[in-house]
Amino acid sequence: MQKIGFIGLGIMGKPMAINLLKAGYNLIVFSRTSIPAEELIEKGATKALSVAEITKVCGTIITMLPDSPQSEEIIIGENGIIQTAKKGALVIDMSSINPIISIKIGEKLASKGIDFLDAPVSGGEQGAIEGSLAIMVGGRKEAFERAIPIFKTLGSSYFLIGENGAGNFAKLVNQIIVTINIAAISEAFILAKKAGLSPTLVYNAIKNGYAGSKVLDSKLPMIVNRDFKPGFKIDLNKKDLQNVMNAGSALNVPLPLTSIVLEILKSISCAGNGNLDNSSIVNFYEDMSKIIVKE
Amino acid sequence: MQKIGFIGLGIMGKPMAINLLKAGYNLIVFSRTSIPAEELIEKGATKALSVAEITKVCGTIITMLPDSPQSEEIIIGENGIIQTAKKGALVIDMSSINPIISIKIGEKLASKGIDFLDAPVSGGEQGAIEGSLAIMVGGRKEAFERAIPIFKTLGSSYFLIGENGAGNFAKLVNQIIVTINIAAISEAFILAKKAGLSPTLVYNAIKNGYAGSKVLDSKLPMIVNRDFKPGFKIDLNKKDLQNVMNAGSALNVPLPLTSIVLEILKSISCAGNGNLDNSSIVNFYEDMSKIIVKE
Repeated sequence: MQKIGFIGLGIMGKPMAINLLKAGYNLIVFSRTSIPAEELIEKGATKALSVAEITKVCGTIITMLPDSPQSEEIIIGENGIIQTAKKGALVIDMSSINPIISIKIGEKLASKGIDFLDAPVSGGEQGAIEGSLAIMVGGRKEAFERAIPIFKTLGSSYFLIGENGAGNFAKLVNQIIVTINIAAISEAFILAKKAGLSPTLVYNAIKNGYAGSKVLDSKLPMIVNRDFKPGFKIDLNKKDLQNVMNAGSALNVPLPLTSIVLEILKSISCAGNGNLDNSSIVNFYEDMSKIIVKE
Repeated sequence: MQKIGFIGLGIMGKPMAINLLKAGYNLIVFSRTSIPAEELIEKGATKALSVAEITKVCGTIITMLPDSPQSEEIIIGENGIIQTAKKGALVIDMSSINPIISIKIGEKLASKGIDFLDAPVSGGEQGAIEGSLAIMVGGRKEAFERAIPIFKTLGSSYFLIGENGAGNFAKLVNQIIVTINIAAISEAFILAKKAGLSPTLVYNAIKNGYAGSKVLDSKLPMIVNRDFKPGFKIDLNKKDLQNVMNAGSALNVPLPLTSIVLEILKSISCAGNGNLDNSSIVNFYEDMSKIIVKE
């Protein structure tokens, strides 16, 4: 079966790599940091000691990295994929990064005859483990079609949205809506609590109406039960909204609500709580209002 | 069958009254303004020329009015229900008003031995016509139980959330979440459009993930199709968020996002578009960013 290179073995990358191994792919893995690859090797992966070891043998290379600087370095940096990848290779960057950087990476790779997809995901660690990620893709149609068997293994939905950058722009759209909605719920339930209402009774009364959402159903019970275990960490959400603001600056798009919510995320991170789930946005409101949203 | 007084025959009140008539209630109706009651009289209602004509014969009186001042005037004003209603009567105010006023009305009525429920609804004109409103109730348990047959006729869900005011507080919680979410979607899809993406493709890619909501599913198609027919009018939404801010001031609750979204609603209303659906929040963003969210 096809040889695939996989770079980035963190919380998301490792379970994704495992799913590719289970599907029968020949995987050659590389970690920038010292994340142990033993579990993957046991399951049949080969460990590479450099990016070049991967590009030598793999026509398709997946990257799953924390943010734009890492994607830039690994794909188009001094020792990056671009230096040694064969013409006609396909690079799929599944990291959530600044879409402007995705466009830049795509252009640089294209100049060497290497195809590129930006394909960030939504669904978190759970989605990565279950192979139920939502994959948002930017790039050429032919490249997208080449990647479909891989996307089918990793996700439950995959959409080609436009040229390079479109995948990461769609991810930013997603993150704007999700994060502002968590803040909206926090603001609303602080008012409910200050008014002496039971959060759970209010939740029951509104959840099937227009206020209903995935965020309400997943985050409100966490808030009421004071369970802020991630899930999706404040610091990663902060990175995403920082990328939103960077993209907004590049495109001259005013983002009044996003900018405020980013400041809230910074405040939580600054208090040393960047590792909590993003439902802990409510903690900012609780500090501000001196009240706790619980029964 | 039970005689019920019904005061307020507007967009919401009229179809609600029709549903009560259909269910067999004896209805005596009164309109503060010159809204014609012919349709209701044809269906069997009796028209009263004053509030006192209603209180004389009805043990239960429903009010469905635009905002706090009208509820105050009709229920506890100089010629209001309180002046002539019998001891043991039940007043159900289904208007969406400032919960602080609901508490005040409840106290005044209680001092005369009249029971009171604040029972605002969510679901709009369509929900009123279909009898599928979500009813959020504040008041005494005994009063709530007395009103259940009426709530069953008018709505598909009804919850007693707490003492007087709790119904309208829950409604404000609902409106905070709904309105901020519309603004979030507007902000997000402006960015998508500025990035050259198809709004519909992005919608398809994100709707089943964490960004998914009733608001996204109902408002995004309206935005893309440039259909801003209400639905729920900007001016009514503005009134609700003004009530949120008033309640927030009374309870000392900081509401940073709600306050910004209220300013957006004011701007749209000020441009003469207060009669459009609240999905037209996107128009504010479009003006600001000089781009239209359509395919």
